[in-house]
Amino acid sequence: MMNQPKKIILDCDPGHDDAIALLLAHGNPNIELLAVTTVVGNQTLEKVTRNALSVARIANITNVPFAAGAVRPLIRNVEVAPDIHGDSGLDGPVLPEPAIQLDKRHAIDLIIDTIMSHPPKTVTLVPTGGLTNIAMAVRKEPKIVERVKEVVLMGGGYHVGNWSAVAEFNIKIDPEAAHIVFNEKWPVTMVGLDLTHQALATPEVIEKISAIKTKPAKFVLEMLEFFGKMYKQAQGFTYPPVHDPCAVAYVINPELIKTKRVPVDIELTGTLTLGMTVADFRFPPDDSCHTQVATELDHTGFWDLIVDSLERIGEVNL
Amino acid sequence: MMNQPKKIILDCDPGHDDAIALLLAHGNPNIELLAVTTVVGNQTLEKVTRNALSVARIANITNVPFAAGAVRPLIRNVEVAPDIHGDSGLDGPVLPEPAIQLDKRHAIDLIIDTIMSHPPKTVTLVPTGGLTNIAMAVRKEPKIVERVKEVVLMGGGYHVGNWSAVAEFNIKIDPEAAHIVFNEKWPVTMVGLDLTHQALATPEVIEKISAIKTKPAKFVLEMLEFFGKMYKQAQGFTYPPVHDPCAVAYVINPELIKTKRVPVDIELTGTLTLGMTVADFRFPPDDSCHTQVATELDHTGFWDLIVDSLERIGEVNL
Amino acid sequence: MMNQPKKIILDCDPGHDDAIALLLAHGNPNIELLAVTTVVGNQTLEKVTRNALSVARIANITNVPFAAGAVRPLIRNVEVAPDIHGDSGLDGPVLPEPAIQLDKRHAIDLIIDTIMSHPPKTVTLVPTGGLTNIAMAVRKEPKIVERVKEVVLMGGGYHVGNWSAVAEFNIKIDPEAAHIVFNEKWPVTMVGLDLTHQALATPEVIEKISAIKTKPAKFVLEMLEFFGKMYKQAQGFTYPPVHDPCAVAYVINPELIKTKRVPVDIELTGTLTLGMTVADFRFPPDDSCHTQVATELDHTGFWDLIVDSLERIGEVNL
Amino acid sequence: MMNQPKKIILDCDPGHDDAIALLLAHGNPNIELLAVTTVVGNQTLEKVTRNALSVARIANITNVPFAAGAVRPLIRNVEVAPDIHGDSGLDGPVLPEPAIQLDKRHAIDLIIDTIMSHPPKTVTLVPTGGLTNIAMAVRKEPKIVERVKEVVLMGGGYHVGNWSAVAEFNIKIDPEAAHIVFNEKWPVTMVGLDLTHQALATPEVIEKISAIKTKPAKFVLEMLEFFGKMYKQAQGFTYPPVHDPCAVAYVINPELIKTKRVPVDIELTGTLTLGMTVADFRFPPDDSCHTQVATELDHTGFWDLIVDSLERIGEVNL
Repeated sequence: MMNQPKKIILDCDPGHDDAIALLLAHGNPNIELLAVTTVVGNQTLEKVTRNALSVARIANITNVPFAAGAVRPLIRNVEVAPDIHGDSGLDGPVLPEPAIQLDKRHAIDLIIDTIMSHPPKTVTLVPTGGLTNIAMAVRKEPKIVERVKEVVLMGGGYHVGNWSAVAEFNIKIDPEAAHIVFNEKWPVTMVGLDLTHQALATPEVIEKISAIKTKPAKFVLEMLEFFGKMYKQAQGFTYPPVHDPCAVAYVINPELIKTKRVPVDIELTGTLTLGMTVADFRFPPDDSCHTQVATELDHTGFWDLIVDSLERIGEVNL
Repeated sequence: MMNQPKKIILDCDPGHDDAIALLLAHGNPNIELLAVTTVVGNQTLEKVTRNALSVARIANITNVPFAAGAVRPLIRNVEVAPDIHGDSGLDGPVLPEPAIQLDKRHAIDLIIDTIMSHPPKTVTLVPTGGLTNIAMAVRKEPKIVERVKEVVLMGGGYHVGNWSAVAEFNIKIDPEAAHIVFNEKWPVTMVGLDLTHQALATPEVIEKISAIKTKPAKFVLEMLEFFGKMYKQAQGFTYPPVHDPCAVAYVINPELIKTKRVPVDIELTGTLTLGMTVADFRFPPDDSCHTQVATELDHTGFWDLIVDSLERIGEVNL
Repeated sequence: MMNQPKKIILDCDPGHDDAIALLLAHGNPNIELLAVTTVVGNQTLEKVTRNALSVARIANITNVPFAAGAVRPLIRNVEVAPDIHGDSGLDGPVLPEPAIQLDKRHAIDLIIDTIMSHPPKTVTLVPTGGLTNIAMAVRKEPKIVERVKEVVLMGGGYHVGNWSAVAEFNIKIDPEAAHIVFNEKWPVTMVGLDLTHQALATPEVIEKISAIKTKPAKFVLEMLEFFGKMYKQAQGFTYPPVHDPCAVAYVINPELIKTKRVPVDIELTGTLTLGMTVADFRFPPDDSCHTQVATELDHTGFWDLIVDSLERIGEVNL
Repeated sequence: MMNQPKKIILDCDPGHDDAIALLLAHGNPNIELLAVTTVVGNQTLEKVTRNALSVARIANITNVPFAAGAVRPLIRNVEVAPDIHGDSGLDGPVLPEPAIQLDKRHAIDLIIDTIMSHPPKTVTLVPTGGLTNIAMAVRKEPKIVERVKEVVLMGGGYHVGNWSAVAEFNIKIDPEAAHIVFNEKWPVTMVGLDLTHQALATPEVIEKISAIKTKPAKFVLEMLEFFGKMYKQAQGFTYPPVHDPCAVAYVINPELIKTKRVPVDIELTGTLTLGMTVADFRFPPDDSCHTQVATELDHTGFWDLIVDSLERIGEVNL
C-alpha cells in the first residue's frame, strides 16, 4: 500500500539550497507541493521571487501557486547574503525566464487559505528562509496553529552559528518572527546548522548528480559549483552545506534524520546572542515541549533522495 | 466655504475614552469616518469588538464598516487594563446589543483596502489602542505608508508614563508594533499622556454634558462616572484624563493642540524603559523628522467639540 | 551661632565646572573639604588628575589629600568629552604646575578611610563625574553606606539628556557604577540636567566675577569663556550651564535648590535609553524612597555663592 | 631536574568542589599556594569564608594568607546554591573550628599585593567562584593584567549550562565581573562545564579515595557523598561532576586537559542567555585571541592527582 503523499507549503528565499529544496519537493512522490511562498532573505523579495519562478520553470512546476510575501523583516532592517548567494540570490547558473505568473494573493493569505481549506493536521509548513511570512500568517489567522500538521523549518542551530557566533542567518535576520513561530504551540522541528553542516555536497555527491545528465541536474551542478566556491571563501568549508533540502527530506522520510525533543526559544535582546535558538538540554522535556531539533543526518540516504528526485523530474525543455 | 471633511480610519480598543472618540468622530461634521477597526488592548479583542458595536448602536452609526483585528500583540503576551476599564472593557453603563454585523475582512485588510481605494494622502489613520493592527497592515502592504495622509495616534508620552515609570499603556503592550509604526516614514502625530493628562473631565465638563439629556449623552456620563472612579483609585487622579478623543480632536482642528516636531523612537530592550517613546529634544529637528508630539491642549475648545458632537448626534432610539 | 561646616569628599573629573565646584567648596566657610578624588570622565584619569592638582594650586588648597582613582569605567569603554572640555579636559586658561603631591592611596581607599575615620553620618559624598570610584568604594567596603551622611551628585536628568536623548554624560559613561550608587540605600540627591541647565553663566554672572579681579577669578572667567564657546558650538546653548558647583551649592545651602523625592533607577539594557536616570513620578514616594531629584535653582543665590567663594579665596600667588 | 612549582592564588567560594581544589593545590608539589581569597557564591561570603578556614585546618594549611572579599556581585543581587551545596555551603561533613585567622586585607588587596610583589608572569590566578574579586582587583590595579602569568578559571561552558539553559553558575551570578575578566588581555583558560561534566566522581574514584583512610580523605568522601546526592536530586547526575579541582589540575599538568583557542565573551543583556560564555568557533582564532576553552579531560590522570595530593597531605590531627 502506498502512503498518502505529505502535503507541504514551501516558504523560501531561493537561494541555491532553497532551489534544491524545491526540486526535491517537486520530484519526490511522497510530497504534494500545495504552494510556494517567497520571503526576503538570501536576497530581496523581488530577486528571490523571480528566482523561485525560474526554478519552477527549470523543474517544470506548472500547477502550484507561487505567491510573494514580506519585503522586509518585522522589526530589523533588511539583511541579505550576497557573499553566499551572489548578487542575484542565485548566482552561478543562467536562469530561464519564468513561465508562470504569481498568485495575486499575498503569501500570508495563500498560506492561510491553503491551510484552512485542507483537512486539519494534513498540511506541513516547510519554511527555509526567514520566518516573517509564517509569523505574519499566524498573527493574522491564529487558527492555523491548530490546523497545520507541523512546522519543519530550516534555521537556527543549538550549538552552531553562522551569522554570529551563536546565531544562524534565517533566524537572525528576523528574530522576532522566529520568536513568534517557536512560541506557538504547534509541533516544530528545527533542522538547524547542527544537522545541515552534515549535508555536504561531497565529490561523491557531485559525481552521482553528474551522472544524471538532464538540464535540471546540470542546473543543480552549476549551483553547487558556485555555492561551494562561496562557502569556501566566506566560511572556510571544504564542501558546501546544503541546508534547505534537509527540511524537505525530513518530511519525506523522518528516519533519515535523528531528532531530539528539547524546548527551544529565541533570544531577542542579547548583545552577542541576538537570534540564538536557545535549546535547554538540562532536563528531560516535559509534555508541554512541542519543539525538537535535528541532530544527525543519514548523508547517503539524504543525497540519494535528491538524486532520485532529479531522476524523476527527468529532462525538461527550457 | 465648507472644508472637505477629513477621512479617518479609527483603530481602537473600546474602552471608555475610545467610545468617546468614536462618538466625537461620528458626530463631528469635519470627520468622515471610513472604517472602524478593533484591536486587543483595554480588554480582549472579543470584548472590545463587542463594545465597539454597542457604541455604534448608541450613536446610531449604521453605514461604517467595523472589522476585528489582532487578538494579541506581535511578540508580548496579552495585557489588559481591567483596573481602568473594568472586566468588560467598558464597565459602567448598560450596553445595548449590537445592531450591525462585523465586516468579514480582517482589520488589517479593511485598513489596507480602505487606504488603497481612496486617493493618495486623503486618509488619516487614527489609532487609539495598541498599534498591532497598523503594524501588521504596513508590513503586509508597505504601499500604505506613501498613501495615507498621516497617522494621528493616542499613545506614548515624552515625559509621562502610566504603564511603567516612562511608558504608556498603548505603546507598552505592543512595543514592537509601535516601533514599526514610528519608524515608517509617514507623518506621525503622537498625542501622548503629556497632552491627554490635560484632557480632564472636570465638573464643568460633566455639567455641560449633563445639560444635553440624550441617551448618548447619558451614556457618556455613565462612562465618565465609572472611568473617574477607576482613575482615582488606580492612579490617584482627581478627574479622569480622557485620552483617545484628543487624537480625533487634533484631526478635526489642529489649532486646539500645540505640537512640537521632534524625532521619536520606541525603546525595545530597556529593563525599566521598555515601550518608552524616546523623544530627542536636544537639537532642532532636521528634514527627515516625520514625527511630532502634542504638548498643550485647549481644554475648553476640546470639550466643546465633544459637547457639539453629542448635540449633533442628538437623541437615539435604543 | 555658627553651623558646623559640612564635611565633604569631592569626587571629580576636572573639567571646567568641576574646577568651579572645587573653588566653591574650598572658598565657602560652610564646607570642610576632607578629600578630593579623581576619576576618568571629561578626560583621561591622568589629565583630570593633573587638572585637579593645578586647580588646587590656583585656589591655594594645600592641606587636603588628593587621590587618583579609576582609569576606566566598570564595563564600558572609556568615553571622554573633548568637544566640551577640550583636549586637556580644562582647555582655555593656562594651568600652573601642581604644587602638591598625590596621596599614595587609591581614590577608593581614600574615600573609604575618610568616611570610616569620621563619626557616622558626618561625611557627604559629592561626586561630580562618573560614579566609578564611588561604586568601587561601596563594593569594597559596604559599611560606608550606613556611615555617610548622604550622596549629593551631579549627574542624570529626569527629563533632560545630553549624551543621548535621555541620558546624561556622567551616568552614561559608567551606567553600571551609577546603578550601584543609586541602588544602595543611602540618601541620594540627584542634581541633574533638569537643574543644572538653569545654572547658566549669564552676562550678569560674568560681570560680577569680572569685578573680583583676582587670579582665581580671572581663571574662572577664562574657563567660562572657553566653556561657553564649546557649549554654544556643541549643544547650541546661548550661555553655558555650569553643572558641578550646583551639587556643592546644595550641600552649602539646600534652600537654593528645590527637590522632589522620587524613586530613581538606572537603565542598563536600553538601546535608546542606556544610562537614563528613570524617575517614577506616578505615585507619591513611599518610605523606602531614598532618592530625590533637584528641580529648581535659585539662580542669583547660586551665583552669589560662587562670587562669595572667589572673594574669600582672594588673591593667590602663582 | 624538578620544575619550579607554579605559584597560584586560589579565589574560591567553598563549596564542596572548591574544598577539593584547595586540598589538591595544597597537596600537590607542583603548586605553590600563595594566597586563598573568598568570594560570595555557593553561599554567603561569611559562610564560604568560614568553610575555607575549616578546610585549611583539615588540610593543615598554616602558612598561607586567607582573605575575605566581595559580599555581593557587582550589579546583580546575591544568588547562592543551597540545592547543591546545602545551607552551610559545605553540608555533609562535620567541619572543624578554623585554626588560623583571616588576613586583615580585603581579598582584592591581597590579590593585588601578591601579584605585584612577585616577579612578572609568575603568578597564576585560579578563580573557582564568581569573578567579583578578580574584576574588582583588576579595576583597582590595572597593572596586574600585564603582571600575572595567566588566569585559569572554573566557570562557563561553551555548549553546556547549569544555571540557565546556556549559562553556568559562576558566570551567571556576576556576569559583569566575568565580562571584565574575559575582556582584559591576559591569557584566560576557561575550564567550563564542557570539561567539568567529565570530571565525575565515579565508584572507581570513590574506591581509590576510600583506600587512603586519613581524616582529609574521609572528609572528601563525606563531601562527595553529599555532593553526589544533591547533584542527582537537582540535576539528574548519576555521579557528581567535581568542577573546581579541574582548574587546579590544569595548572599542575596542562596535558591532562585538551584545550582549544577561541574568542570568548560574556553576554550581558540576553533575556535567555544572560551570563553565557559566547565562544566563536566559526573562524580560526587570530593573534589577538587570548582565551581558550577546556574540551577534554584525562579522567584517570585527573583523579590520580587528587588521590596523590591526599596521600601527600597524609594524616592530620583535628
